[in-house]
Amino acid sequence: MTMERQVLLAHGGGGSLMGELIREVFHSRFNDPILAAADDSANLGALPGRAAFTTDAFVVDPIFFPGGDIGKLAVCGTVNDLAAQGAEPLFLSAAFVLEEGLPLADLERVVESMTSAAAEARVRIVAGDTKVVPRGKADKLFIATSGVGRIADGVSVSGSGVKPGDVLILTGPIGDHGIAVMLAREQMGFAAEVESDCAPLWDLVSTACFAGADLHAMRDPTRGGLAAAANEIARQSGVALELDEDSIPVRDSVRVACELLGLDPLYVANEGKMLLAVAPDSAEAVLSSLRKHPLGAQAAAIGRALSGPSGRVVLRTSLGTTRIIDLPPGEQLPRIC
Amino acid sequence: MTMERQVLLAHGGGGSLMGELIREVFHSRFNDPILAAADDSANLGALPGRAAFTTDAFVVDPIFFPGGDIGKLAVCGTVNDLAAQGAEPLFLSAAFVLEEGLPLADLERVVESMTSAAAEARVRIVAGDTKVVPRGKADKLFIATSGVGRIADGVSVSGSGVKPGDVLILTGPIGDHGIAVMLAREQMGFAAEVESDCAPLWDLVSTACFAGADLHAMRDPTRGGLAAAANEIARQSGVALELDEDSIPVRDSVRVACELLGLDPLYVANEGKMLLAVAPDSAEAVLSSLRKHPLGAQAAAIGRALSGPSGRVVLRTSLGTTRIIDLPPGEQLPRIC
Repeated sequence: MTMERQVLLAHGGGGSLMGELIREVFHSRFNDPILAAADDSANLGALPGRAAFTTDAFVVDPIFFPGGDIGKLAVCGTVNDLAAQGAEPLFLSAAFVLEEGLPLADLERVVESMTSAAAEARVRIVAGDTKVVPRGKADKLFIATSGVGRIADGVSVSGSGVKPGDVLILTGPIGDHGIAVMLAREQMGFAAEVESDCAPLWDLVSTACFAGADLHAMRDPTRGGLAAAANEIARQSGVALELDEDSIPVRDSVRVACELLGLDPLYVANEGKMLLAVAPDSAEAVLSSLRKHPLGAQAAAIGRALSGPSGRVVLRTSLGTTRIIDLPPGEQLPRIC
Repeated sequence: MTMERQVLLAHGGGGSLMGELIREVFHSRFNDPILAAADDSANLGALPGRAAFTTDAFVVDPIFFPGGDIGKLAVCGTVNDLAAQGAEPLFLSAAFVLEEGLPLADLERVVESMTSAAAEARVRIVAGDTKVVPRGKADKLFIATSGVGRIADGVSVSGSGVKPGDVLILTGPIGDHGIAVMLAREQMGFAAEVESDCAPLWDLVSTACFAGADLHAMRDPTRGGLAAAANEIARQSGVALELDEDSIPVRDSVRVACELLGLDPLYVANEGKMLLAVAPDSAEAVLSSLRKHPLGAQAAAIGRALSGPSGRVVLRTSLGTTRIIDLPPGEQLPRIC
């Protein structure tokens, strides 16, 4: 019988055990000279161009799920918030809150997953922090990542940039992440059929940024799903958005799971999709450039922006009727990301 | 009887309740146009010079203590990590993990405290995120702050920059923060006598950065106290450090509390102090510029760097003996910051 290696309170205490954890678990995997300098701040040197800065906390339950884990999510979520601003992700920081007793093997698996995701996203993890709280004062681990990126030259996107007439483009099918986590949590039989779409999107959306396209807005539809993202940018831009139900891609497995669980895929979280608003004469070029990328093969034009009513999102259903897509008060699924 | 307003799970759900919380609790107080743009990332514009980037998670218990609270700590801690790199703090992000049931009044008090601390530090809070976890899955609230700063021109400090012969300067008395939190936690009778030193230090240390001084290293002695900070920079720089016990300022109240609690002030956390290593011929100028600032009135030269043994920290005691100051395995006090 071997003792399971666990996170101890002393691992967060600023002493030699914390030093060991940082070197052996984090630095050895993230393996970045700026991080290894172990100063109070990372020296990033000169950052040419315009900088973007973002942060997100991740508390997903369970921490491992089909298609990803809290570590991959923490990297991709922050990379995608930079990408939504038209910013190439350059540097990430990661702050960990660990629960005493967390198996070190779980932490190592999460850190390895972050390392892979960062490599895929070509972003460097250069700063970090670790705190440990007593058993029962957190749930396994939480991760807060922040990111610094460089806004691509000539690109100016914002949630407030949508103009009447813009075409709405979605980079792929919705609902995968939320359903994958939900099924993993409930341990339902058909869990294996749906995987989280968790993926870093800069490589994909940069094709749209650099296609000479007239790109006005991007938003990644995470918590609250496509419905929340559409409502947010409609409100910020003071326009109405009209979505065509038939053109919104949803996998059959996700549709079935949503029906069984009583969920509407429009409201289910995504972690590897982007919603774009582009000028009508740029729509074909953007769609075609997105579709050439593996993460955008199912990209589709799903609707349009109208001059008003300001902030309103409407769905044209398969039956030809319309219904208002409101922002729900909360998420059906807590701790989805 | 009035119902206490509380944080609900739906406040983290990405829907309209989250929007209300963000606008009414956070945006109204942080009151920054970049934050109010509510995009996925903050557009910082051009950042001239060299950029510094840092992150920290804060899990202090209790969240309110004499001299500060988790919000002030979250701002000052990150500002001070930038300052330790010789970087003027410019922008902060804040990611919150809230426990369902947290009184909204507590959250508002913390956010107001962050607002004041940010104003004092002249730093802008431009990005944020809020997650809510079910009751019992976190402890009230955790905050992860990240910071972006500009490294002052001509300044090059690092924990690895200490040179043999350097004079070690401490900006004021040690142990206040750790003792204040410990006494608040234990609800001891003499709690009111010790206040946390929690303060933003850039304004203070910039006087040293700009004094034309030959400044080699800075480190803020937080978790693990002065002992940990000294051990870290001794190890990074490959030098030995010798501290003079009699010259290290400690308040009488802190000394008494440490004796009662069985703690060594060298190992107790600080949140408003900086340890500096400067070339001998710059020491007087740095000390004099620090002492002119209210936060540095008790600044003192507390020791020196020697060529070796590499990584060793030694204390010259009042009795003329020496003892090795090791890095302890962990902190005596979990959740001190």
